Amino acid sequence: MELDENSLQKFGYIRRETSGSINIDPLQTGGMLTEAARRALVEWGDGYSVCDFCPGTVDIIKKPPINEFVHKALPSFLGIDEVRVTTGAREAKFAIMNSFRNKGDTVLLDGLAHYSSHLAAQRAGLLIEKVPSSASPEYTIDPEDYGHCIEKIIQKTGKPPVLALLTYPDGNYGNIPDASKIASVCHEYDVPLILNGAYSVGRMPVDAGKIGADFIVGSGHKSMASAGPIGILGASEEYADIVFRKSPTHKKKEIEMLGCTARGVSIMTMLASFPAVVKRIREWNREVENARWFSEQLGNMGIRQMGEIPHNHDLMFFEAPILYEISQNAKGGRYFLYKELKARKIHGIKPGLTKNFKLSTYGVGREKLSSVVDAFDEIIKKHD
Amino acid sequence: MELDENSLQKFGYIRRETSGSINIDPLQTGGMLTEAARRALVEWGDGYSVCDFCPGTVDIIKKPPINEFVHKALPSFLGIDEVRVTTGAREAKFAIMNSFRNKGDTVLLDGLAHYSSHLAAQRAGLLIEKVPSSASPEYTIDPEDYGHCIEKIIQKTGKPPVLALLTYPDGNYGNIPDASKIASVCHEYDVPLILNGAYSVGRMPVDAGKIGADFIVGSGHKSMASAGPIGILGASEEYADIVFRKSPTHKKKEIEMLGCTARGVSIMTMLASFPAVVKRIREWNREVENARWFSEQLGNMGIRQMGEIPHNHDLMFFEAPILYEISQNAKGGRYFLYKELKARKIHGIKPGLTKNFKLSTYGVGREKLSSVVDAFDEIIKKHD
Ligand SMILES: Cc1ncc(COP(=O)(O)O)c(C=O)c1O
Ligand SMILES: Cc1ncc(COP(=O)(O)O)c(C=O)c1O
Repeated sequence: MELDENSLQKFGYIRRETSGSINIDPLQTGGMLTEAARRALVEWGDGYSVCDFCPGTVDIIKKPPINEFVHKALPSFLGIDEVRVTTGAREAKFAIMNSFRNKGDTVLLDGLAHYSSHLAAQRAGLLIEKVPSSASPEYTIDPEDYGHCIEKIIQKTGKPPVLALLTYPDGNYGNIPDASKIASVCHEYDVPLILNGAYSVGRMPVDAGKIGADFIVGSGHKSMASAGPIGILGASEEYADIVFRKSPTHKKKEIEMLGCTARGVSIMTMLASFPAVVKRIREWNREVENARWFSEQLGNMGIRQMGEIPHNHDLMFFEAPILYEISQNAKGGRYFLYKELKARKIHGIKPGLTKNFKLSTYGVGREKLSSVVDAFDEIIKKHD
Repeated sequence: MELDENSLQKFGYIRRETSGSINIDPLQTGGMLTEAARRALVEWGDGYSVCDFCPGTVDIIKKPPINEFVHKALPSFLGIDEVRVTTGAREAKFAIMNSFRNKGDTVLLDGLAHYSSHLAAQRAGLLIEKVPSSASPEYTIDPEDYGHCIEKIIQKTGKPPVLALLTYPDGNYGNIPDASKIASVCHEYDVPLILNGAYSVGRMPVDAGKIGADFIVGSGHKSMASAGPIGILGASEEYADIVFRKSPTHKKKEIEMLGCTARGVSIMTMLASFPAVVKRIREWNREVENARWFSEQLGNMGIRQMGEIPHNHDLMFFEAPILYEISQNAKGGRYFLYKELKARKIHGIKPGLTKNFKLSTYGVGREKLSSVVDAFDEIIKKHD
């Protein structure tokens, strides 16, 4: 591409097409900024803005109060000893796995683990074993299966996995497994457990200490009303020195953090949204009620929620044979649903999906959720 | 920390103390947002905003035109075959090094390499050897020394380093080494060269192809007028398949990218600033002139620039025995200089430094640079 006036015109400021829609995209409902975060964006937008008074690494900056946020507020928020900010949940998982890397070692993932947990393990050169989930429609994880899988790994390789991971909830069905039980089972074999809270930390109460997780990771842009990319990584005292080990040559810098991670505006949006995030978690029951209500309404139209019922999270997976049938003859084919929803200013179900799709009701509120329910009803009736 | 009303008040929206100052912080002069980027921040601030129409990974998103930006505009901009966006220059360096990791292998760094190059190598478990720089005051790198060091590594380990890296320019003195010559020397031994352009890409013309670099990395928040954290990683065809190798289980996802990197507003600020960045590079000569002029003015006051003279970059390191002497008796001690500059609304020299400090004249312009020169002059005279 020649970089001339003409081609450069394609870049510059670009508008976001979906602005102003009701958003039920599971990736997006928990990441929308608060007003405070939006103001922080403008104030701290420039490059390495937060480094004005850098004492060596980003997590110990006192002005703005990142040090207090990372080393006091977040540990208390997560119920864990040590926390660092990362550039996302996946980078946090990788930092942990890379700290335990050793050729021939295994990490045990739940069968519903996000692709990024697999990639983190592959990037760290670890072998992967999976704890199977139950079959459709529930897809649950039996804590005892962690024990069985660990036994199998010991048989196969002569040693237990170096780490186990649990996706809490998983990113497909929004199922909330029995994390405490799973932690106990792992600890029977001295296997440390990573709790992947990409879809929970910042939305619902999660306490790594109470659960007994050794590590916890969260996603700022997904669930903490932050501008991406940003995440958090918590570790118990027992393992903090391993994951946050310092460079032998640059004594202030932590190797897995490459010194500094969220060295810019993203951390200021997380900090700006934090008071609101702490408060919204107290309203989690209402969010669960809204999700259940929504699931029931769609159920009445023949759109069936998979995963745990009654449901315990805003992320839900639906099977909609009725919409699939309509798509067979509708104008626009499999894109008909996307188009119908778009015409009603509803965004978040992937273009082209009809038979199965996921969505999230988080923070949408009963009124807008009612509009979404009405939209599905109308669309089905229209194509009847 | 108890997360109650009282403690939560410490977070939320926070003002930036240095707003409105003349900024000569080397970390910050090249990362200030353009107006287009500032508007993009607000439009695309929400969490995973860019994922509205995700086709599998962030780099191939068509709406907004990230695909065209990453796969057409950036390769042309850098003069290299394949580019990805990362969360920073250091993460790009690590991705390369991690792709070449093999126990007992070595990476060869220039003696002026940034700490993050060391940490990237340590994180990837590679051994480090360094090409020495010449002594004070010049600190230059002799291309032939790359050859000597490679020979030494072969003698010591039986094989050449798996990678060499050159910091272009280095982050202390702003010296511009003879990168083409160094690339040739490395290629005599079939050692691929990483060009660390954290301080060049986005400020001055750099063409990896012309130089003969196999990899090039850049820093968005440092030198491309972008909100952090964001960087870029370019690779020649020969090595692109190694660094951008795909997951065996998730065929669309690249392992070193963990699938997606800059999955949020940061990439939209880079894209928004890009036309202006391309244009500002054409004004590089003026920036060099300004730097030289500034260096000369400070020189006249006994503040001596280290590194190459005449200088070829906006980043400069100064030795100021005269300011150090003043600090011995001044009110505020070693913080006197910081305070005097702050009183004149000049930000960017680290609080507490007097004897040695670095600064950058990039994009500041002659008028404001004159004010800075006048400020130094005043401060010295005042304490005479
Ligand atoms: C369950 C789960 N874990 C992890 C991630 C990755 O989060 P991040 O983008 O912060 O790496 C996701 C993102 O979709 C997810 O759904
Ligand atoms: C020479 C050099 N390389 C790399 C970096 C790191 O850049 P980034 O923050 O994009 O990782 C810096 C930052 O100061 C630098 O000065």
